[in-house]
Amino acid sequence: MEIHGGNIYKEAKYLGLSVDEILDFSANINPLGIPESIKRNISLNINNLVNYPDPNCTELKNDISNYLNIDEESIIIGNGASEIIYLFLRILNPKKVLIPVPSFSEYTNITKQLGIDIEYFNLNESDEFKLDINSLIKNISEDTEAILICNPNNPTSTLLSREEIEALIEYAGKKNIYVIIDEAFIELTMGSNNNSIVGYMNKYSNLFIIRAFTKIFAIPGLRLGYGIGERQAVKKMWDKKLPWSVNNFACSIGNVFLEEKEYLDRTCEWLIKEKEWIYEHLSKINDLKVFVPKTNFVLIKLLNPNVNSRILKEKMLKRNILIRDASNFVSLDERFIRIAVKDRDSNIRLVKALQEIGG
Amino acid sequence: MEIHGGNIYKEAKYLGLSVDEILDFSANINPLGIPESIKRNISLNINNLVNYPDPNCTELKNDISNYLNIDEESIIIGNGASEIIYLFLRILNPKKVLIPVPSFSEYTNITKQLGIDIEYFNLNESDEFKLDINSLIKNISEDTEAILICNPNNPTSTLLSREEIEALIEYAGKKNIYVIIDEAFIELTMGSNNNSIVGYMNKYSNLFIIRAFTKIFAIPGLRLGYGIGERQAVKKMWDKKLPWSVNNFACSIGNVFLEEKEYLDRTCEWLIKEKEWIYEHLSKINDLKVFVPKTNFVLIKLLNPNVNSRILKEKMLKRNILIRDASNFVSLDERFIRIAVKDRDSNIRLVKALQEIGG
Repeated sequence: MEIHGGNIYKEAKYLGLSVDEILDFSANINPLGIPESIKRNISLNINNLVNYPDPNCTELKNDISNYLNIDEESIIIGNGASEIIYLFLRILNPKKVLIPVPSFSEYTNITKQLGIDIEYFNLNESDEFKLDINSLIKNISEDTEAILICNPNNPTSTLLSREEIEALIEYAGKKNIYVIIDEAFIELTMGSNNNSIVGYMNKYSNLFIIRAFTKIFAIPGLRLGYGIGERQAVKKMWDKKLPWSVNNFACSIGNVFLEEKEYLDRTCEWLIKEKEWIYEHLSKINDLKVFVPKTNFVLIKLLNPNVNSRILKEKMLKRNILIRDASNFVSLDERFIRIAVKDRDSNIRLVKALQEIGG
Repeated sequence: MEIHGGNIYKEAKYLGLSVDEILDFSANINPLGIPESIKRNISLNINNLVNYPDPNCTELKNDISNYLNIDEESIIIGNGASEIIYLFLRILNPKKVLIPVPSFSEYTNITKQLGIDIEYFNLNESDEFKLDINSLIKNISEDTEAILICNPNNPTSTLLSREEIEALIEYAGKKNIYVIIDEAFIELTMGSNNNSIVGYMNKYSNLFIIRAFTKIFAIPGLRLGYGIGERQAVKKMWDKKLPWSVNNFACSIGNVFLEEKEYLDRTCEWLIKEKEWIYEHLSKINDLKVFVPKTNFVLIKLLNPNVNSRILKEKMLKRNILIRDASNFVSLDERFIRIAVKDRDSNIRLVKALQEIGG
């Protein structure tokens, strides 16, 4: 499948640098780095690679069940959020999926790959790209059988309230439409799981939630995501899943929720401080329109007609800084870039470079 | 998907033991354990989990290309051999797949899951389960579009020569039938890659080969397999693949071929000695019919009518030894078990236990 995101390996090769030498603002990962308990678990489990992974991810399911207070039978584990989306769309096999855009490019890739029709609903820049549920509802066509929403949304960094999502689920339920909410970044919003719709799972049978360890614990390289849904749908997904797609290391890190409360607190503190800091400082740069971020990345519009996302990315790369050219998100163009919120030192470097280059 | 193999986690839980306390003869893994270079690579790469895996597995493809002297464009990398089989069957989408049985249960699972018809060709116990290519050819039906063969075959431990396979590929080519050869155990045969059909890749466009790191390097928990085929088919597989299904650690271990020549030599020495030793000693046990093994596992028939595979497995488990009840392989029954060839100490324990229990 084609990758639309930043491929740091390609960029590093292009620059003749090692991956470590690039300051990566293109991937939206918790800058606190990998929690110690995960590193320790991996070190201790290397010799256990001689065993096949537990195909049922028994322990991990139990850990997630305790973390979110949900039934184990409602949990499916997968190789990143991607496998979860893929499996769910495979078992649901909807005629058409409605996707508000811009949003995570993998939704389109996976849906197309499965031969499922897509309808896009354009978010308005004039509304700061915030999804208006009533407008969305008005635009649901007859053959729509699923709606796929990223919350908080990538790349717009907007957040829907639980009330807004509930209104949509209730309406959709009457029309036999599934609502899929991708909460990959939910723990990186102010309020974390309080913004999640997970607590409403038992109330709605047309709700499916996607989650991941990727962003919050900074481990995109390990491949671990999960889904939460109605038991029968989840069972079908387990039946369709390749049995060992989740590796042994990923299976073994579920204790991170219990052991890393302090890490999660520090994440919260960092987010409060740095999200505001970077928004404030980016907003002061001429020719940049900065959208208010609700999670750990910021969508930016380039107002200077002589600069576009490709040119700016090239210029930043010369300073060993990788930003996300957001032009290939459906409904965006070469006026848009996305940057991650990182640690203060890195954020200072980014802001300084953008000031000097001039948005 | 349902697992037909040994699930050591379930068995350990059932016995109230940790996984380490069970002597596992059910998984056919190189008993020399994980090569040091792989362990080192993992330890050194833990911090690199903050990056997404390279979706193209660039380095690994290069390492495999050098190892087997084949074009990079002919190589697809996947999450174990399972993902390779799945992807290949998905892009080929044959009307019907012909599978000689007994064979690896995942072939049936994956083929069924994709809604593809299966036709089985029964291997004869009277031929020691050796596949007779001429008989197979006579049994190819009109709508067969692919033949899936495990070589060496699991669970029979039989091996086809390259000449036999070539004869099949040539015949199949004329009928527009694809021949898929799963060589997951090829490096665990006497002669290793000299038994492989990889060198014939350029000669036939209807040949697809499945390989894995799993067995030879004892890393089923890491998830790494690959496929070798005609470039256009391989390209289609890359297009259909979820972009990050191969984790960072798996992507980084390709240097094992260069760095572990001594490990591969030791593997060869172990195999020569232990395969013969275990065959000889098992053959002496009353009421066991032992089939000559060509790779690192042995198929055994229980001749005592009062013992079946389930009973024997239970009895062995009481001695903390896990064997593979082979009754759920298509075309086998409760008369059959399979055991791995392990290190001498373990093999002695197995033989002793079987002697005492009495096949």
